[in-house]
Amino acid sequence: MVQRVIRQIHDSKIDANITVATSNMQRDALINQLGDNIEIVTEPSRRDTFPAIALATSYLSKCKGISPKEPVVVMPCDPYTDANYFQTIIKMVESIENDIADLVLMGIRPTHPSTKFGYIVPKKDNPLYVERFTEKPSENIAIELIKLGALWNGGVFAFKLGYLNNIVAKYSTYQDFASIRDHYSDFPKISFDYEVVEKSDSISVIPFRGLWKDLGTWDAIANELTQSCIGNVLSSECNNTTAINELNIPLVCFGTKDLIVAASPDGILVSDKSQSDKIKSTVDLITSRPMFEERRWGQYSVLDNHEYVDGFYSLTKTLTLNPGCSISYQKHLHRSEIWTFVDGEGIIVLDGVSSQVKRGDVIKINRNQLHALKAINPLTFIEVQLGDFLSEDDIERCEWQW
Amino acid sequence: MVQRVIRQIHDSKIDANITVATSNMQRDALINQLGDNIEIVTEPSRRDTFPAIALATSYLSKCKGISPKEPVVVMPCDPYTDANYFQTIIKMVESIENDIADLVLMGIRPTHPSTKFGYIVPKKDNPLYVERFTEKPSENIAIELIKLGALWNGGVFAFKLGYLNNIVAKYSTYQDFASIRDHYSDFPKISFDYEVVEKSDSISVIPFRGLWKDLGTWDAIANELTQSCIGNVLSSECNNTTAINELNIPLVCFGTKDLIVAASPDGILVSDKSQSDKIKSTVDLITSRPMFEERRWGQYSVLDNHEYVDGFYSLTKTLTLNPGCSISYQKHLHRSEIWTFVDGEGIIVLDGVSSQVKRGDVIKINRNQLHALKAINPLTFIEVQLGDFLSEDDIERCEWQW
Repeated sequence: MVQRVIRQIHDSKIDANITVATSNMQRDALINQLGDNIEIVTEPSRRDTFPAIALATSYLSKCKGISPKEPVVVMPCDPYTDANYFQTIIKMVESIENDIADLVLMGIRPTHPSTKFGYIVPKKDNPLYVERFTEKPSENIAIELIKLGALWNGGVFAFKLGYLNNIVAKYSTYQDFASIRDHYSDFPKISFDYEVVEKSDSISVIPFRGLWKDLGTWDAIANELTQSCIGNVLSSECNNTTAINELNIPLVCFGTKDLIVAASPDGILVSDKSQSDKIKSTVDLITSRPMFEERRWGQYSVLDNHEYVDGFYSLTKTLTLNPGCSISYQKHLHRSEIWTFVDGEGIIVLDGVSSQVKRGDVIKINRNQLHALKAINPLTFIEVQLGDFLSEDDIERCEWQW
Repeated sequence: MVQRVIRQIHDSKIDANITVATSNMQRDALINQLGDNIEIVTEPSRRDTFPAIALATSYLSKCKGISPKEPVVVMPCDPYTDANYFQTIIKMVESIENDIADLVLMGIRPTHPSTKFGYIVPKKDNPLYVERFTEKPSENIAIELIKLGALWNGGVFAFKLGYLNNIVAKYSTYQDFASIRDHYSDFPKISFDYEVVEKSDSISVIPFRGLWKDLGTWDAIANELTQSCIGNVLSSECNNTTAINELNIPLVCFGTKDLIVAASPDGILVSDKSQSDKIKSTVDLITSRPMFEERRWGQYSVLDNHEYVDGFYSLTKTLTLNPGCSISYQKHLHRSEIWTFVDGEGIIVLDGVSSQVKRGDVIKINRNQLHALKAINPLTFIEVQLGDFLSEDDIERCEWQW
């Protein structure tokens, strides 16, 4: 989705510097997808949309030296839209440049009285400006709102950087970005809509009529898929069931109705389709570590994770390094690692001594032993971590000149 | 279930020699659960109930030398029953001993007009004998059958061994058990009911009234469970949903209704509860290798399974050997194995040389290298198999004196 949005921005000839605001966990996957030249601001912890946008605009001010007079557009990357959407964004920027309002929103022309979106109600006498907002109304109220010319809130905001700087200053007075990020928890856990939009008395809205599909729920994604089963799935006697299986074990769906089933290394979801917009609070309860991650150097999956009676732990992963990529020169205080190479060729460095590794080689890395690895061609190995404490944080990095 | 049934047979003071008929795959798990002293007959391939019973009775005749006059009772191990069930079995044996009929069935007194069972209709004038059978009738016909005194067919059969020997002789004339088993495919793929029961004209039925629950479907098992969620399951807004998760990743059920979700290393099932009796033909399509197996020496799980572009394969397992148990002295033609020991202590033998292994040790076993392993205490290791052909059949066993 983020690749498509960035491609569409370029196709629309919008002359914009793009910065992606995301979580730490998505960082490497984004760099792999978008390349090294993309600006990325990562939240140190998950809060809400206001802190995330505040951090990103602080980055623009403090790190990039962007003028307070510059217009900024904040847009989500999950709606599936056509080119007119980006023409509307250009109009929003023009409105900000022309000082039409402090804040300019995109209003999506409703196609039906949806109960799942927020509605923007324009002023009766001047529909260029916003009268009020109504969050997720009942169907009857939605019908009334549409009669009044109300639009769905597309979550696209335009403003001058200085406008948000003033709001950010209420919570964070640090002058450098590193300190603002270090004190990220000073920002209240609140959405941008509540903290900024609803408090503003100068809001304009630009309507957009065209293809706009919010792919923020499994139900919406299922509607866009051309297949009902993806991956190793056997389905029989099912009705309106979408099954996506990224695991390498079979998934059988039998006699199910209106269901979404999604299985991945991180977990399995079985949800009624019409309620898939409500799963967030339940899924948020899951605190387990990621089982699959895309990294700058390649990717890994956790295969096994075990605690023994004496308080020792083992963690088994399969890792693949992309050609030319490397794992930094590092050591661990609390664990040893055993690497069994199963495919490809690479160069390993152990305490300053480098040698070549290939399929069938086994390397044992002791605690406190410095090690680095570089792939010549795609290099896959099984890693067994063993220690009294296993954490991605138990890492001390050093320099190595390849 | 099999442990419970055998305990109940002993509790009922039935003086019986017990033989378990099962598939090859279940053999080691059964020995672990029942001990070494149990007689087990394993089918070389999956056919149907007549071949399975024919093989088991051939074993009794040819290997155990049981007289053709001896009564034999065939019973499934999945019904959940009370002690009276076993008293009824004693009555069935007495009927066979007294030559009441060639075949004696157990008839379960119906509690409702079920459409899922076969019905035994007794003779009007002499309800000790069977008039006819009706398989899975409609509810209306079931109501009529119950009025006629019909009973559910409990799948328990008693006969003299010689009676079945004569039927077996129609298909297999080999005089030794090994040859009968080697030519198992000579037996027709047909159920015992169709091949034996429905062709007999001398059948008696002994009614049983008491606790009898067929746990042969997920729906029936779910009804007997005291919890709706077992394992790592998060369930919200669900109705009549049973979720069992044996995987170490979270399972989320949201807004589901009348559903059974079962996740294990071998696969994931999502089924409408009321249709869970029909999943067999769909699940039978799955041909993948077992991902978890209990063996005489312990257990293993497959963690990862990969084929590389050059036709090489890797397979990663975690294995645990029980204390005192060992893996036989063996070698493989097509694969090397790398063992990383993560817990416990044991003794390894490599080409005749034995040494001790413990947590953190890594052993590389080359193709054609003889190796054996014995656990001193519970011994867990990660095995990476690497080769051009990975199969449990690629094994050559030798003798080793521990």
